[in-house]
Amino acid sequence: MQAEVISIGDELLAGLTINSNASFIAENLLGIGIPVRWITTVGDNEDDILGAMEKAHDRAEVIIMTGGLGPTNDDISRHVVARFLDAKLILRKDVLDQIARRFKRMNRTMAPTNEIQAQIPDKADIIENRIGTAPGLQFKKDNRLFFVLPGVPSEMKRMIMKSVLPILENRAGENILCGVKLKTTGVAESELYYQIRKFTDLFPKIRLAFLPNPSGIVIRLTAREQSATDCTNLLDKGKHYIYQQVGQYIYGEDDHTLEQTVGTLLLKAGKTIAVAESCTGGLISDKLTNISGSSAYFERGVIAYSNRAKIDILNVRSDIIKKYGAVSEETAEAMARGIKKISGADIGLSTTGIAGPTGATPDKPVGFVCIGYSDDQRTFVQKYVFTRDRLWNKERFAMSALDIVRKTILGDI
Amino acid sequence: MQAEVISIGDELLAGLTINSNASFIAENLLGIGIPVRWITTVGDNEDDILGAMEKAHDRAEVIIMTGGLGPTNDDISRHVVARFLDAKLILRKDVLDQIARRFKRMNRTMAPTNEIQAQIPDKADIIENRIGTAPGLQFKKDNRLFFVLPGVPSEMKRMIMKSVLPILENRAGENILCGVKLKTTGVAESELYYQIRKFTDLFPKIRLAFLPNPSGIVIRLTAREQSATDCTNLLDKGKHYIYQQVGQYIYGEDDHTLEQTVGTLLLKAGKTIAVAESCTGGLISDKLTNISGSSAYFERGVIAYSNRAKIDILNVRSDIIKKYGAVSEETAEAMARGIKKISGADIGLSTTGIAGPTGATPDKPVGFVCIGYSDDQRTFVQKYVFTRDRLWNKERFAMSALDIVRKTILGDI
Repeated sequence: MQAEVISIGDELLAGLTINSNASFIAENLLGIGIPVRWITTVGDNEDDILGAMEKAHDRAEVIIMTGGLGPTNDDISRHVVARFLDAKLILRKDVLDQIARRFKRMNRTMAPTNEIQAQIPDKADIIENRIGTAPGLQFKKDNRLFFVLPGVPSEMKRMIMKSVLPILENRAGENILCGVKLKTTGVAESELYYQIRKFTDLFPKIRLAFLPNPSGIVIRLTAREQSATDCTNLLDKGKHYIYQQVGQYIYGEDDHTLEQTVGTLLLKAGKTIAVAESCTGGLISDKLTNISGSSAYFERGVIAYSNRAKIDILNVRSDIIKKYGAVSEETAEAMARGIKKISGADIGLSTTGIAGPTGATPDKPVGFVCIGYSDDQRTFVQKYVFTRDRLWNKERFAMSALDIVRKTILGDI
Repeated sequence: MQAEVISIGDELLAGLTINSNASFIAENLLGIGIPVRWITTVGDNEDDILGAMEKAHDRAEVIIMTGGLGPTNDDISRHVVARFLDAKLILRKDVLDQIARRFKRMNRTMAPTNEIQAQIPDKADIIENRIGTAPGLQFKKDNRLFFVLPGVPSEMKRMIMKSVLPILENRAGENILCGVKLKTTGVAESELYYQIRKFTDLFPKIRLAFLPNPSGIVIRLTAREQSATDCTNLLDKGKHYIYQQVGQYIYGEDDHTLEQTVGTLLLKAGKTIAVAESCTGGLISDKLTNISGSSAYFERGVIAYSNRAKIDILNVRSDIIKKYGAVSEETAEAMARGIKKISGADIGLSTTGIAGPTGATPDKPVGFVCIGYSDDQRTFVQKYVFTRDRLWNKERFAMSALDIVRKTILGDI
């Protein structure tokens, strides 16, 4: 059983709205074992919507449409559905009453234009909308199941969860899809691929994908089996192999973030951290404090953007900056030692580098960073070069710094 | 002239990635007068990609494809293009050299798998990729223009701006759609709506929308005219009206951020700023330093998460914290005065509050924040209560703090 999503709306084609509705629907259908194979986006145009419906009817068994059910004249899905079904639009008194009651409850007067939301094709059933005015539609044509939902995300989501999934769950059959994301940082996609190149031979039934983003590379595994247990078991075996090969790069699974992992490790180790940032400008501290409860291990941060701040607060010696430069291993080391000392934290972490686009020198290009680490046992600096724009570089700098903390606590550095 | 976007990737169909690439492309093509009429999303599946290309070839003049150009086995766009064009894949030595040079520059070894990124269909030209390894492809078939770009957003965006738009600009038609986003913060949607409620009567040809996000409310205006000049003139009139009514809330247009506005204002005023953050955890400093050139006005930041940091670095008196609490107007004021004094900056800005979900007290709920401001003329504290989750609250706190700086420099506070 395969599905198609048809997203309707000029705002999607104008790039003014990102199509997160389609992602929500796809994720939830997949969750009950119905993969979405096509997502088609068209504007508020009768012929284009009809064309998309006909194409979907040819190739998919379940079709979920969103958008075009509002009260304004560019909302034409009801008309197109009537055309597609060769049906008549009739004003449903029960639906109109429901819309009127809704307006009354909100102490607002119903505009005459809302009446058209009660016009329902006579060959379609309605899907109740408890949080908005436009009901959804559902109908069957030649054994294809169609659902037409509002484009307003909260209304669409509720209908998917409360009405569409319960109907589809019984028909999904036994074909369950399961998946996991393994999140890595500090390693190139090609290197990961090389290390696990035998995977597809070993696990021909698991699909492997590499998804790069500014934080690193996500390895995604998906499988399809007769039962949820079979699916999870298969996936676990594949996961086990990947951890054996490249486990040192994996900091978390699915929605887990690196700052969560680092926070958990710090808590377990009973250690505190303080951060001295230059080129990352507060991003490391921002990430660490995104975690509720981080005050137990995050002691303080200093964004020593100016040389004076490096000298005044962090006690970096001015002759070090003068001799080696603000962006240097020596300054990074002094910053890490300095923040550790003034804060009394167990770990001092520092960054100094060139986020760009300006500030590069012949031997220090944009994307160059020195990351300093200092604890009671040792102090060291690691250097990296990234090659993107300012925001991307800041993200990579921050991820690299947090990953050094992760690896150090785990004994991998 | 009409365009189609084909987005390729299993992750899009699994709902794991939201298709923001398609929105970016659509918005920018529309900007030069080429509307995107269809967006089609398919998985990493040769037949589905080919099917989408054939359909697009039938109905659109410009086709932009993204995804499937990486170095791994699920990246199959090159093969499909070769099939579509009835072309051979040849290993392009010049492209391979470029990829190798890129790895060398980053001090990394090129994996053998990267070689496949240098395999180019012999009937296609390449589009240079200056920030990633996979070059894009471009080719013509029966007068249809195809562009195949990587799915990595930063690489795709650069190729659209530097390569695709310059080629297409000369071919665009006459029915121009233009739009503008006016970005506000610190005001409710209903209040904005009320203040500009006459807009649709005054400007029936301009479409008005309110888009809420964690940073504030965006007012979007769109219009369609015969020529770019007509469109811009109409839009300017509408914009002028909105600025008259609610201009004090608007901090920027389109992609402009509040930190850009604040940075420009600080530069013009010749003033420097230093920030003492508690509940925002570095987010304000991170935003300010996202702007290239911010070192001219951003002197330093301190994330005084612990009471000890507030006392040690910012010289907040411990009896103030003891008497009024770390989250209080008194502490916020002392933090703002403290950071101004130790940094020597012209403006000291501070935050202390409860981002949540824990930490609330009966009189200080989650979402409560005190923002302190201090310059040579005056020192004051503003209090707010927001009501969302931790990350949303941090964002609102940071935006509110930056907006205080904007308003103060403009003389609005």
